[in-house]
Amino acid sequence: MQISPLAPTSFPALPAIDGVEMAAGACGIRYQGRDDVLLVSFSENTTVAGLFTQSLTASAPVRACREALKGGKARALVVNSGNSNAFTGKAGVSSVARVGKAACAIMGCEAEEFFMASTGVIGEILPDEKITAALPELASALSANNWNNAARAIMTTDTYPKMVTRETILGGKRITINGIAKGSGMIAPDMATMLAFVFTDANIPSSQLQACLQEANATTFNAITVDGDTSTSDTLLLFATGKAENAADADLAAFKKTLHEVLHELALLVVKDGEGAEKLVTITVTGAASERAARKIGMSIANSPLVKTALAASDANWGRIVMAVGKSGEAADRDALSIHMGGVSVAKNGMVDPDYKESLLTSHMQGRDIQISVDVGVGKSSATVYSCDLTHRYIDINGSYRT
Amino acid sequence: MQISPLAPTSFPALPAIDGVEMAAGACGIRYQGRDDVLLVSFSENTTVAGLFTQSLTASAPVRACREALKGGKARALVVNSGNSNAFTGKAGVSSVARVGKAACAIMGCEAEEFFMASTGVIGEILPDEKITAALPELASALSANNWNNAARAIMTTDTYPKMVTRETILGGKRITINGIAKGSGMIAPDMATMLAFVFTDANIPSSQLQACLQEANATTFNAITVDGDTSTSDTLLLFATGKAENAADADLAAFKKTLHEVLHELALLVVKDGEGAEKLVTITVTGAASERAARKIGMSIANSPLVKTALAASDANWGRIVMAVGKSGEAADRDALSIHMGGVSVAKNGMVDPDYKESLLTSHMQGRDIQISVDVGVGKSSATVYSCDLTHRYIDINGSYRT
Repeated sequence: MQISPLAPTSFPALPAIDGVEMAAGACGIRYQGRDDVLLVSFSENTTVAGLFTQSLTASAPVRACREALKGGKARALVVNSGNSNAFTGKAGVSSVARVGKAACAIMGCEAEEFFMASTGVIGEILPDEKITAALPELASALSANNWNNAARAIMTTDTYPKMVTRETILGGKRITINGIAKGSGMIAPDMATMLAFVFTDANIPSSQLQACLQEANATTFNAITVDGDTSTSDTLLLFATGKAENAADADLAAFKKTLHEVLHELALLVVKDGEGAEKLVTITVTGAASERAARKIGMSIANSPLVKTALAASDANWGRIVMAVGKSGEAADRDALSIHMGGVSVAKNGMVDPDYKESLLTSHMQGRDIQISVDVGVGKSSATVYSCDLTHRYIDINGSYRT
Repeated sequence: MQISPLAPTSFPALPAIDGVEMAAGACGIRYQGRDDVLLVSFSENTTVAGLFTQSLTASAPVRACREALKGGKARALVVNSGNSNAFTGKAGVSSVARVGKAACAIMGCEAEEFFMASTGVIGEILPDEKITAALPELASALSANNWNNAARAIMTTDTYPKMVTRETILGGKRITINGIAKGSGMIAPDMATMLAFVFTDANIPSSQLQACLQEANATTFNAITVDGDTSTSDTLLLFATGKAENAADADLAAFKKTLHEVLHELALLVVKDGEGAEKLVTITVTGAASERAARKIGMSIANSPLVKTALAASDANWGRIVMAVGKSGEAADRDALSIHMGGVSVAKNGMVDPDYKESLLTSHMQGRDIQISVDVGVGKSSATVYSCDLTHRYIDINGSYRT
């Protein structure tokens, strides 16, 4: 598999988080010769927050997670790649239940402390017996230092593992936040996007943890798109073991900021590994009537196949940006619209900037990091979204995914 | 240019319509060695109806047409290809005015009887002097039998001209409806899509003509998509010369039915010439809560890049259809959802049909004409939409469009 040209040149070594242990293994669900199942164990009193796909055809594991989340506590997480266990009816529900029963027996926990996430082909029955058979060996291999293997085991068409770590101070105690995620297609934000798991030793009650997660998610995972297609399996889970023993009523400002950094970096790693991606595209919309409108206009640009194919060809075809603003349905003043690309003023007051020449943009357009700013001239709200270009490789990858 | 594999094998010879004359010419706006401007003249008392893009960045000609339409009468139509005169500010408005002034002087008509449509690159100033310079020669070449040239002059990335003709009886008189259209990318329905011009000798007041057009458009041009991108120039105009001299209060049922046939065939010709299209995809959604919901679900499937790339690869990856239903945001009962492809039951009751085997679909998927039916199990409304697959050629065409 060709590694994304936007891949990071090195990967961070994620530190241990007190209360979190994990093991990855190969159970042959779909992929051969690589790990495809992950078991994570959490110490007692670990709180959990989660966000899931808004898809009406959400997968069986997503439904099970939503149910378990009501308890606010987690002891075990099982993730498999290669099969999403979505649109599998009662069989899918039973699969999750059987894996959960096996995991809870091993970990000595309650059913509502078990979480599962699956990613891969939609509509095929999950061979859950392969997972349950692998669990005892995984349980005996649990370690606090398996982050790299964990990040790799959850990959599907991802070309590199996605890992982020940060530290901050919470209530006078040093705490760590580690995150892992997987992409790479069917990426369009709708609450949460794809699989991402974030772990911390902070001590935060589940209700506050959920609020922190929602706030950070809004401008990170919910601000990215690869192809405008929303997965049936999108899952973002945040686990807090509490082992840092900070006071439960500590000021959460620094935690929120650091959590945002972790999610932001994970989200960008997902976009940079978007199927076929060769350029990261950052789109900032200002002058909008509301944040929601700014985001919708940004996403209209970010998802336009005409914009994305032009960017893939390093073509500064800014007329297509105008088109995408126009089709968004959100208020924009055509005669006040201005567009910058790579910091160069391309259009202002509803037409091409008289000083604009394509040669000013040649080098920017040929780069890996495309910057688009649009002011729609009707208000004071803004939003930034992140996307990638649309290349031949996207079609190659998605024409051959199942074969 | 490679002709679409879905192109018709022959083109109809459109008959003359009493009161309509036209001429096409080459004025070198963008394309060399081919016609790129069209002049159509109408006899006195010709009524007109129109539908235009809902884009907030609509082109200058679209704005001018909306204004002129208020009068309900038409004497002249000028269409150019290669430059859409969109996002061109006051310069664009002046361009339309100058072409209109020249055309009205030649045709001896009023400004509000002049209509213009432009298609091509967005954001470049229209060299309208090239069009006005060409008008006298076009006026002297007007003929009732230039349909083929007219259909070719309005093409951009189209690989074949789009022409349809039908006859019917209206108020005891035989009437004809001719239509021409152009595609081929930036095709997503939002009232009207791209340029289409329909001509009849029927005698119908403009207000009734408008109602007929809206009704027929809803399930034809508004039911197609190539790439989900909505043009700044979408224009659908219907001209009725009245020369058939049917009674003005004739029953319009047959006319409406025939108009629908013309628009339906034109719309399918546009989809079949969608950029890079190798398969026509017909998607029927039933069991929806409303027609609007059925159409939105259908469009969610029709515009999904993952569905479209799978179809391009002849892969019956129906899980992606489930995904697209789920992301539409419209009500669907996951556990009652059923999917047919090529008449074969693929999924029912929220999971794969136990009798389904991929081999049943191999031959259908390799064909040019893909049929997808989805019942979402919540109501009694339905809708059919038309799309095409997403191939490498779409990326080639749109990466090199301006170069």
